[in-house]
Amino acid sequence: MQFTAQDISFLLNGTVEGNPQAIVDQLAKIEEASAGSLSFLANPKYEQYLYTTGASIVIVNNDLVLAEPVKATLIRVENAYSAFSVLLEQYNTIKLNKTGIEQPNFVHPSAQVGDDCYIGAFAYIGPGVKVGKGCKIYPHTYIADNVTIGDNVTLFPGVKVYFDCVIGNNVIVHSGAIIGSDGFGFAPKPDGTYSKISQIGNVILEEDVEVGANTTIDRATMGSTIIRKGVKLDNLIQVAHNVEIGANTVVAAQTGISGSTKIGENCIIGGQVGLVGHISIAKGSQIQAQSGVSRTITEEGKRWAGAPAVSYLGNQRSQIIITRLPDLEKRIIELEKIIAEFKK
Amino acid sequence: MQFTAQDISFLLNGTVEGNPQAIVDQLAKIEEASAGSLSFLANPKYEQYLYTTGASIVIVNNDLVLAEPVKATLIRVENAYSAFSVLLEQYNTIKLNKTGIEQPNFVHPSAQVGDDCYIGAFAYIGPGVKVGKGCKIYPHTYIADNVTIGDNVTLFPGVKVYFDCVIGNNVIVHSGAIIGSDGFGFAPKPDGTYSKISQIGNVILEEDVEVGANTTIDRATMGSTIIRKGVKLDNLIQVAHNVEIGANTVVAAQTGISGSTKIGENCIIGGQVGLVGHISIAKGSQIQAQSGVSRTITEEGKRWAGAPAVSYLGNQRSQIIITRLPDLEKRIIELEKIIAEFKK
Amino acid sequence: MQFTAQDISFLLNGTVEGNPQAIVDQLAKIEEASAGSLSFLANPKYEQYLYTTGASIVIVNNDLVLAEPVKATLIRVENAYSAFSVLLEQYNTIKLNKTGIEQPNFVHPSAQVGDDCYIGAFAYIGPGVKVGKGCKIYPHTYIADNVTIGDNVTLFPGVKVYFDCVIGNNVIVHSGAIIGSDGFGFAPKPDGTYSKISQIGNVILEEDVEVGANTTIDRATMGSTIIRKGVKLDNLIQVAHNVEIGANTVVAAQTGISGSTKIGENCIIGGQVGLVGHISIAKGSQIQAQSGVSRTITEEGKRWAGAPAVSYLGNQRSQIIITRLPDLEKRIIELEKIIAEFKK
Repeated sequence: MQFTAQDISFLLNGTVEGNPQAIVDQLAKIEEASAGSLSFLANPKYEQYLYTTGASIVIVNNDLVLAEPVKATLIRVENAYSAFSVLLEQYNTIKLNKTGIEQPNFVHPSAQVGDDCYIGAFAYIGPGVKVGKGCKIYPHTYIADNVTIGDNVTLFPGVKVYFDCVIGNNVIVHSGAIIGSDGFGFAPKPDGTYSKISQIGNVILEEDVEVGANTTIDRATMGSTIIRKGVKLDNLIQVAHNVEIGANTVVAAQTGISGSTKIGENCIIGGQVGLVGHISIAKGSQIQAQSGVSRTITEEGKRWAGAPAVSYLGNQRSQIIITRLPDLEKRIIELEKIIAEFKK
Repeated sequence: MQFTAQDISFLLNGTVEGNPQAIVDQLAKIEEASAGSLSFLANPKYEQYLYTTGASIVIVNNDLVLAEPVKATLIRVENAYSAFSVLLEQYNTIKLNKTGIEQPNFVHPSAQVGDDCYIGAFAYIGPGVKVGKGCKIYPHTYIADNVTIGDNVTLFPGVKVYFDCVIGNNVIVHSGAIIGSDGFGFAPKPDGTYSKISQIGNVILEEDVEVGANTTIDRATMGSTIIRKGVKLDNLIQVAHNVEIGANTVVAAQTGISGSTKIGENCIIGGQVGLVGHISIAKGSQIQAQSGVSRTITEEGKRWAGAPAVSYLGNQRSQIIITRLPDLEKRIIELEKIIAEFKK
Repeated sequence: MQFTAQDISFLLNGTVEGNPQAIVDQLAKIEEASAGSLSFLANPKYEQYLYTTGASIVIVNNDLVLAEPVKATLIRVENAYSAFSVLLEQYNTIKLNKTGIEQPNFVHPSAQVGDDCYIGAFAYIGPGVKVGKGCKIYPHTYIADNVTIGDNVTLFPGVKVYFDCVIGNNVIVHSGAIIGSDGFGFAPKPDGTYSKISQIGNVILEEDVEVGANTTIDRATMGSTIIRKGVKLDNLIQVAHNVEIGANTVVAAQTGISGSTKIGENCIIGGQVGLVGHISIAKGSQIQAQSGVSRTITEEGKRWAGAPAVSYLGNQRSQIIITRLPDLEKRIIELEKIIAEFKK
């Protein structure tokens, strides 16, 4: 798709400075842009690039004063950053604007699918499933028996949702994520083998949740594994059975949350963190990447780090001294020698 | 599905106390149960909930003496916990009781599929594949050339099995797990590039193995990567080429096992553990979550922790002192000052 | 397939010693081989097995002098190891020699597919996609709108490639890998919720890249996440948005690379490593498994270890002393006692 400076200016309620017929067909960073690109300048740090950029059109703030002549056509707006964000979003909406029903697909006669849904080829929608309005069910997705899906939900290609799970409005699940696989529950038997504990609960993803690629969320043994409203999960995360993650908590890639652990609201959890089972994490907690959290955190809004996790500052102090350990050991040996001398 | 107290009591060989026509259509924990739920009371710690629960029916032990009147209908049995387990299992069996052949699917003419198998839509069964009796091959599973699958095997949606792999009876593989992808083998060339080492072995999953969602098990370079009878693997685990995991070993999520490492029987390995290649782990070893095991463990039945892993107690002692390091350093500085004074 | 010693000798330009009609139908290690197997002896350490092996045919070096009589038929060649490698590769080529177009598949009318491609059943090739010559697009792969794929590319079953991504010649992507999922970008709002930042960039995999099973590579927010020529990624790796990995760098399983980090050429990165965002790693760096890299590395060709990562040797020294910490603490207490005595 191609747009002129005039089109974009009209959309953003801006003013064109330069050629209103300048044409762009892609978005790019100002320092990397080539001809045909639309870019923006918000951070004054990047102003230098305005005078050298290859971009055909650049969105700038109304109050920008040019230090040199500019080759690109400018569009002046109140706030260049948010104007560009609006364009980004519209661009993405167009890119992801899949519609219609592709063949072959499998939709069980007892399933209900709302209006204006996209159903990709090879998608599978099982018996008793309810899908709301405006959903995008991409190819190779699997939605098992009696799953309930809200409105405007996007399941990217290859998402698998096991039976009885519930997905709220506006949820986005990326490719390869598995929702509702069995919790890891086995009872040891006297002969050293294990018997499987049936996992009959489900997973609930509340509104506005986003789940990253190849993340796994196990169903509850009984009851529900619950991901509250607005939670954002990155890729390759493990969420075990009966976990609950509080609203608006953000979890980075490859973190693992063990069974029955409850995480509060508005937490920020780094990548590759491990949390043991059956603990709770106070709301607003921030946990550094690669930490191992082995006990309940009751103080709200604190930072934690290390394995086992302690206060962020405490961990920093210990970490610094660890790098000095060889020196410390030498100093102890030195003291011991001196003391031995004294004793003589 | 709905059941009356009488139905369930008959199934469990129990005695109804209360309304034999009480109806339930779901299972729930006693402390969370609402009307229409079936629950159980085994642990005396939870007895308080018996008098307040919303459950319509509760299974209790024969010898339970009521301290107060109970609203729910009771079913008395010898052992409430195991009776409930039986019900759980039956419930699950009904939930997962898929049968028949859905269309479209791809079954190569040279493949053999046993009796009473479920084949989901979009399942792919390649040339020379043998599938036993009573298997459930869910949608979007891929079974490559010459794979052999035993009886009563469940491959959940999206499982991929590369060519020549062997899967034993009663194996369960969860969605997104990859069985038999290439081992990570590359030979460096003088110019800094790598040439791929062909990976011509396979993966063998013996009887009663369970593999979690999105776990990857690489084929052997030559010979077999072997997961012995009764092993349970959680989600997102990496098993490299030529690994062998002993019978009844349990591995938690996100652990990685490097090439050619052999793990003994009846080990318990926590989550996010890393094991280097070409080592062996004695049977009955227990390895704490997030450990890094860098050498062979020959003593059987011990606990290990830390990275590099040492004895569990040794690691605990070191970990505790690490949190005290800033204090220790201060004490050394203090000693040095005093000694300096003495010297004067 | 069956081959005689004569066939193989002809292929390798070797000399048969023993029965030229000896037949093999599989490859095996010399210490594990049974009748019908072809094996090789290159490392003198393994010569003992030559006299006991069950292999029907063994490839050996021209200059091998037998210490005892050998049961197997021998094929003498210049270099037994490289001769065997040639056979391995040929074996694999035959195993993976899929051809033709299986039904049902979904190829959009606007997609272009080159000559001699394999397209598996249930593969999805979207609008505007270009696929080169000699590619293998296995079942359940998904190739979104406007993706460009070079020649001789293999996408194993279940690979998902989001829109606009670019895949170079000879690339191999294993099952379940996700190319081009959204970067993890969210802008916090005053009420504690997050708004999604549109991810409009793409992923570029250059020539000769190999991507392991269930690895995830996120698209750039803008611009490209770039995996340079010859990079080899193992399984379950997370590559975040706007990362760049230099040519011929090798990354082991379960490592995570955070947003906008640049890794140089010819690095070797162990398993379960974490790298924070917005740093760069000098070319030729080697990073030990389970390390956490939290700052830019500018020195080329060095080894690093630990979390936070320091020089490999420095980390080793600290690690050794950590195991001695309980002892060190005792020695400090002892010194304090003695000093206290002196003071009196």
